[in-house]
Amino acid sequence: MKAAIIGGTGYSALELIRLINKHPHLELGPIVSSSNAGTVFSEVFPHAAGTIDNRMASFDAEKISKEAEIVFLAVPSGISKTLVPDLTAYGVRCIDLSGDLRLTSPDAYEKWYGHTPAGEEIIGQAVYGLSEIYSDYIKNSRIIANPGCYPTASLLGLLPIIKSGLADLQSIIIDAKSGVSGAGRGVSLGTHFSEVNENIKAYKLGSHQHIPEIEQILSKEAGKPVLVTFTAHLVPMTRGILATLYVNLTESILLEEVRNLYREYYSSHPFVRVRPEGNVPATKEVAGSNFCDIGLYLDERTNRLTIVSAIDNLMKGAAGQAIQNANLMNGWDVRAGLEDISFYP
Amino acid sequence: MKAAIIGGTGYSALELIRLINKHPHLELGPIVSSSNAGTVFSEVFPHAAGTIDNRMASFDAEKISKEAEIVFLAVPSGISKTLVPDLTAYGVRCIDLSGDLRLTSPDAYEKWYGHTPAGEEIIGQAVYGLSEIYSDYIKNSRIIANPGCYPTASLLGLLPIIKSGLADLQSIIIDAKSGVSGAGRGVSLGTHFSEVNENIKAYKLGSHQHIPEIEQILSKEAGKPVLVTFTAHLVPMTRGILATLYVNLTESILLEEVRNLYREYYSSHPFVRVRPEGNVPATKEVAGSNFCDIGLYLDERTNRLTIVSAIDNLMKGAAGQAIQNANLMNGWDVRAGLEDISFYP
Amino acid sequence: MKAAIIGGTGYSALELIRLINKHPHLELGPIVSSSNAGTVFSEVFPHAAGTIDNRMASFDAEKISKEAEIVFLAVPSGISKTLVPDLTAYGVRCIDLSGDLRLTSPDAYEKWYGHTPAGEEIIGQAVYGLSEIYSDYIKNSRIIANPGCYPTASLLGLLPIIKSGLADLQSIIIDAKSGVSGAGRGVSLGTHFSEVNENIKAYKLGSHQHIPEIEQILSKEAGKPVLVTFTAHLVPMTRGILATLYVNLTESILLEEVRNLYREYYSSHPFVRVRPEGNVPATKEVAGSNFCDIGLYLDERTNRLTIVSAIDNLMKGAAGQAIQNANLMNGWDVRAGLEDISFYP
Amino acid sequence: MKAAIIGGTGYSALELIRLINKHPHLELGPIVSSSNAGTVFSEVFPHAAGTIDNRMASFDAEKISKEAEIVFLAVPSGISKTLVPDLTAYGVRCIDLSGDLRLTSPDAYEKWYGHTPAGEEIIGQAVYGLSEIYSDYIKNSRIIANPGCYPTASLLGLLPIIKSGLADLQSIIIDAKSGVSGAGRGVSLGTHFSEVNENIKAYKLGSHQHIPEIEQILSKEAGKPVLVTFTAHLVPMTRGILATLYVNLTESILLEEVRNLYREYYSSHPFVRVRPEGNVPATKEVAGSNFCDIGLYLDERTNRLTIVSAIDNLMKGAAGQAIQNANLMNGWDVRAGLEDISFYP
Repeated sequence: MKAAIIGGTGYSALELIRLINKHPHLELGPIVSSSNAGTVFSEVFPHAAGTIDNRMASFDAEKISKEAEIVFLAVPSGISKTLVPDLTAYGVRCIDLSGDLRLTSPDAYEKWYGHTPAGEEIIGQAVYGLSEIYSDYIKNSRIIANPGCYPTASLLGLLPIIKSGLADLQSIIIDAKSGVSGAGRGVSLGTHFSEVNENIKAYKLGSHQHIPEIEQILSKEAGKPVLVTFTAHLVPMTRGILATLYVNLTESILLEEVRNLYREYYSSHPFVRVRPEGNVPATKEVAGSNFCDIGLYLDERTNRLTIVSAIDNLMKGAAGQAIQNANLMNGWDVRAGLEDISFYP
Repeated sequence: MKAAIIGGTGYSALELIRLINKHPHLELGPIVSSSNAGTVFSEVFPHAAGTIDNRMASFDAEKISKEAEIVFLAVPSGISKTLVPDLTAYGVRCIDLSGDLRLTSPDAYEKWYGHTPAGEEIIGQAVYGLSEIYSDYIKNSRIIANPGCYPTASLLGLLPIIKSGLADLQSIIIDAKSGVSGAGRGVSLGTHFSEVNENIKAYKLGSHQHIPEIEQILSKEAGKPVLVTFTAHLVPMTRGILATLYVNLTESILLEEVRNLYREYYSSHPFVRVRPEGNVPATKEVAGSNFCDIGLYLDERTNRLTIVSAIDNLMKGAAGQAIQNANLMNGWDVRAGLEDISFYP
Repeated sequence: MKAAIIGGTGYSALELIRLINKHPHLELGPIVSSSNAGTVFSEVFPHAAGTIDNRMASFDAEKISKEAEIVFLAVPSGISKTLVPDLTAYGVRCIDLSGDLRLTSPDAYEKWYGHTPAGEEIIGQAVYGLSEIYSDYIKNSRIIANPGCYPTASLLGLLPIIKSGLADLQSIIIDAKSGVSGAGRGVSLGTHFSEVNENIKAYKLGSHQHIPEIEQILSKEAGKPVLVTFTAHLVPMTRGILATLYVNLTESILLEEVRNLYREYYSSHPFVRVRPEGNVPATKEVAGSNFCDIGLYLDERTNRLTIVSAIDNLMKGAAGQAIQNANLMNGWDVRAGLEDISFYP
Repeated sequence: MKAAIIGGTGYSALELIRLINKHPHLELGPIVSSSNAGTVFSEVFPHAAGTIDNRMASFDAEKISKEAEIVFLAVPSGISKTLVPDLTAYGVRCIDLSGDLRLTSPDAYEKWYGHTPAGEEIIGQAVYGLSEIYSDYIKNSRIIANPGCYPTASLLGLLPIIKSGLADLQSIIIDAKSGVSGAGRGVSLGTHFSEVNENIKAYKLGSHQHIPEIEQILSKEAGKPVLVTFTAHLVPMTRGILATLYVNLTESILLEEVRNLYREYYSSHPFVRVRPEGNVPATKEVAGSNFCDIGLYLDERTNRLTIVSAIDNLMKGAAGQAIQNANLMNGWDVRAGLEDISFYP
């Protein structure tokens, strides 16, 4: 099956291309890049020379529909919402890695993203692609709103305890740390090497656009409004997200019971691995893979649960989960093309 | 005034030597290193060649007392407790950078450090050297228990809101991130470059020896027992601690009021800088300096305060604060030898 | 075909296991680790949990010969020389990633490695596994001496110009820069994070054990003794080798002619890519792949050629080339299991 | 003495401000920044809050001349050449950290920098500020062309052997590695964190503007034209330059004799330190200091000398040497304000 990539020179697109190149059922079709249309991909990215020598094109929905059955949109926010309707009109299935189709509330989108929202019809058709949680919907969808990197790490870590009914829903704190590739390939002082190296900083306190996405899903799954405190941090590394999650429990419970609850919740999901006692994940242990690793600690003195969730932000946090969703949509083995373990070290 | 260093080849000792070398009132006396006694310092550390060419010695309390009036102990835990009594018997003042004399409860020390505790008399004489908070006691002390790096960043960030009475004392969460120099110069797989680089991990959940130190001071200042949830993280950088602190407030209050409260609390303390609105500190902005920078954010929806506190773990978190305490003990300007701004970038 | 790994907890072994896990014709057999025998692999390396849950074993040549047809030895120098004879006695084919079987001169081995050399019979049977150059010999061999990381990058960059007869053989300088994983997983002060980070250093000037290996092959291919100046540098990154190579030319020639000469030399070898004009490789562009990328610059004023050669030290410089050699030995497509492009960024 | 800074928000300017802040004889006067005129310095750079709260100004030569006796120009190339004449017309002494006044040949400047050159009169007055070599001229100058970072490391490493007459002048190769701060604070894809981290690359082969600067001084000191091969590399670290220098010797000589020759050459220069046998410098060992450390290795087989020269590119390679030159111009101790040893680790 041929797959097209829109937004061909960003990091998520690079990762999608890397993955499609070794996928057993997908083949790379058109690469669309408005800024590099007409250029050979491997001239811009010599790491792909001899393998991805396709010439990049500008966007043309009709042409794409003839050359691909599925499209991955790896563009900045504010763009997918105009492209997806065109593409679906031609019968192409879309997996959108941007934030355009994730929020069901147009007002929330406008407030947090600062763009006019996508049309309600498109939003209504889009399925939130958190693969483990919404696989049944994903299988039957034609438009996927692929989750953000922070929401993926946070939600996979939080949902088992939320669903268990044991969580104090007013106590949730997400302290998340990300590698710099999450900020994309666009240059800025905030991602300038000499400013980021040997440095850790918090950013966008209270204003990160992933906050409403996390709250929307938690509220939906909890069945009542949930607000979280979320802090994003920039860490001097390229890949990886570590989310340290804090939740007060409403009942006394043993850590091993919590662990069993997590293991059961993910028992049929090979990409979520719950660590044994005394073992919490590090981002390097999932780098380059589609795994989300989860570690648990319970402070019995305060009955507060600490959950450590680790993903590769470009894999399970973006391109890997997008491929996982493509696998689900096509009825393939969910692991197809995603069998790699981490490129540790 | 001559100063001796015990534990001459660890990172805190290196930093002390760097600072004493440019201190207007201190002069470097004996450098004691059990593993390198007899060796010239700059043969082990060529960065100091031509400046610190002293020959290192083995420990001899009497000899040290003749060559130095003040001693900085930068040794692993479990050692100072035996050296400090010898040194004070000879009338030398001691600033201990290890954890040996910080905990007032011998049981707590034994539980968290796994060594037999120091004698009660020594612990009774030791003043906890969190300079801004205990300056009056430090001025009149002969033994200083210099605070740990995580406690310094955490306590300076938490104490203003704790003392204000506005904090829900059961809600305190400390999510702390440290550079690798905090783990010292001893080699281990956990500090091996290829394991740490491009990686962030949480460690010692619920078992970090700085937990009782933080709780001891918070409880003392709050006037009632305080328990915290504390998570330490290792970040791929050499220097710096960023502590992201979460506290629920018990009353409605404006962020600007909280900021004013912090500014007032530290109004006579030049090393603590409270950031203006919309501005939280990054570790690089304090690297190489003795500053602790504090940023504030209040989520009005949940009435939860997020405090971001940044220090250089080897400076304000170890050697810098030790020098600051020496300044206090001697009645010198608290900034003497500590005027440097960060070596940014 | 089942493959065994000896030395299962070093970085080359990890990389071999990662590659065998996705190889179309190889299957992971016994993992031998003297220090971890009896332990489940994924308990030591949680990144492989759920995928590589094999229990590690101690060395037993007979047992290995029953469970594997090919053995990869990823052990420190001084060990393979005793294991390979045992294994070959049982008819198993061996690919040795250590330096034990590379030097044809026992005296040279003893001088540069400080161990007693392997038996002459074994050395006589071992084929130097620089895949592109010695593929004909590799195909028919039962013992491969897999090249060192620095020699691979250096030789692939130098051989085309050496073989052309245009090189002044007395002028060769190799200035090589390596990531830290090349130093292995054993801890030491020289690979301690806080010592390596924000630091570049030269090491082992004139005494690096890869010098005789490079000179042996260059001399063999030039048909006369060749001595080189080689400087190894440690760079604060985990993976990658960049070798900057300097050669005076004996005749006037255009850069494009040199480039054509290189392209022709490697025309049937997919893993060596010669860059177009104005383009020299960076290590990130080959990280995680088996490529060796080569860039060329000619200073017409001095008629000195600068060659920049980039590899991933754990891939083309170790495990990747070992798999490539296994492919050659078995008559498989040389790219089998090595199709990945770089995990850029 | 009051000092002005032109170009107040680049890294060299930051470093100058850090150094002037602790200089015993210099006081910070106007900070000129065209892009930030009117803004308080510490609002842009919170690391300096409470210390450098000066309001930045736009360029006004007359005003500067009333508020400062000496001016440091830390601006991109192409700007100083127009500002220096204005400033000197008002009697202010200028230390120019850009490349505008370094090349004595206007044609060379135009070729390598791509700007029209400075007026010949200004170039004629400018003294090349390689402090150790031209101290006598610096003392009596009113305009200093402060050397480039690569030339400083390269020339200090090469000049002793060049002046000895033992060097084959046609054999000189400079393989230089720099931290990213050398590329300045302006953002670009080449200095974007995710592109630089875990990466080493060569750049500007044969076209780096420091080549003519190095050749000009080597030719002048050798008394005949000298051409070099120079390769610049970008290393994933913020500060530091390591130059590995290769020179064929024309006579047989012992390494210890070469070392003595170097030590004698620099015997009255405290900032150049020649390492003992078996010891070559790493950049971390000079980071934050004004030292240039030099290590030596002689391959007796080829009679080729390898010289390793390490500096902090922002210190001895820019701001530190500028302060050193100010010290010389004013007859102060050359170490004034530059006594710091490296902030190791």
